Amino acid sequence: MLNFIIRKSAIEDMPQVLKLIQELAIFERAEEEAILSVEDLERDGFGEQPLFSCIVAENETEGIIGTAIFYNRFSTWKGKTVHLEDLIVREKFRSQGVGSALYRAVMQEAYNQGVKRVEWAVLDWNEGAIKFYEQSGAQVLRDWDTAQMDESSLKKFLGK
Amino acid sequence: MLNFIIRKSAIEDMPQVLKLIQELAIFERAEEEAILSVEDLERDGFGEQPLFSCIVAENETEGIIGTAIFYNRFSTWKGKTVHLEDLIVREKFRSQGVGSALYRAVMQEAYNQGVKRVEWAVLDWNEGAIKFYEQSGAQVLRDWDTAQMDESSLKKFLGK
Repeated sequence: MLNFIIRKSAIEDMPQVLKLIQELAIFERAEEEAILSVEDLERDGFGEQPLFSCIVAENETEGIIGTAIFYNRFSTWKGKTVHLEDLIVREKFRSQGVGSALYRAVMQEAYNQGVKRVEWAVLDWNEGAIKFYEQSGAQVLRDWDTAQMDESSLKKFLGK
Repeated sequence: MLNFIIRKSAIEDMPQVLKLIQELAIFERAEEEAILSVEDLERDGFGEQPLFSCIVAENETEGIIGTAIFYNRFSTWKGKTVHLEDLIVREKFRSQGVGSALYRAVMQEAYNQGVKRVEWAVLDWNEGAIKFYEQSGAQVLRDWDTAQMDESSLKKFLGK
């Protein structure tokens, strides 16, 4: 059985957290898209007005084996919500309850904050994840798409 | 020709902004989902750590005829981003450039902030909006779905 604890991340964890983020990007064949540095994570997560919260799953000998990154959003219908941005488990430690424990910890945090909703994105072909989410009581809305304007399109649009 | 200015909202605008939010909810046949009050908007948008920013389109005689509500999110690939939560134009003032002006103002704000991405959600059957977004240089990702855990499911999941 895999032993691990779930705890709030510290700024010292960011190198290991970034490694997990990069591992996921490689898995999704988008390595070049993941452009953040350790310093970015340290500044954005641990400054005066942090842009995200981070919890980690830690094993005594292996170090950080999973992470969940989340932050508040605002719904004009529901008010403050929690958005789960990433939930990552190192590949060799999957299917051993780490993901579930991180997921539950995020839900507990959202409950403690008293928000009306937790929200996240899922790839529509990821049936395993969708099944897990639906069994936990979440709803998967299949009629909303995500629109994105990236930096270069933004400049072009504004004529910069 | 419709005359209007785009400006940052003030706390005094929140009653009119809420009316726009509620009009949209009625249009989307989800009136009962929009549970926020003017006080909620005032507290969440104008406190020490505001949960959202708001700009408005204002006509001298008609008052506020449109609004855009946005806030920062955090991408583990791109860092700080801008999320456009709502862009609403009062029905009788549509197709007169108000929506475009609000959209451009949000993009300008994102550019000023130096973010790497602006993101928002669009209903997949809303082809008119999708066409507008794509023509402006945005990409519509059709393979991501939105998962949501609402308050009652959250309590059930946690056994509360």
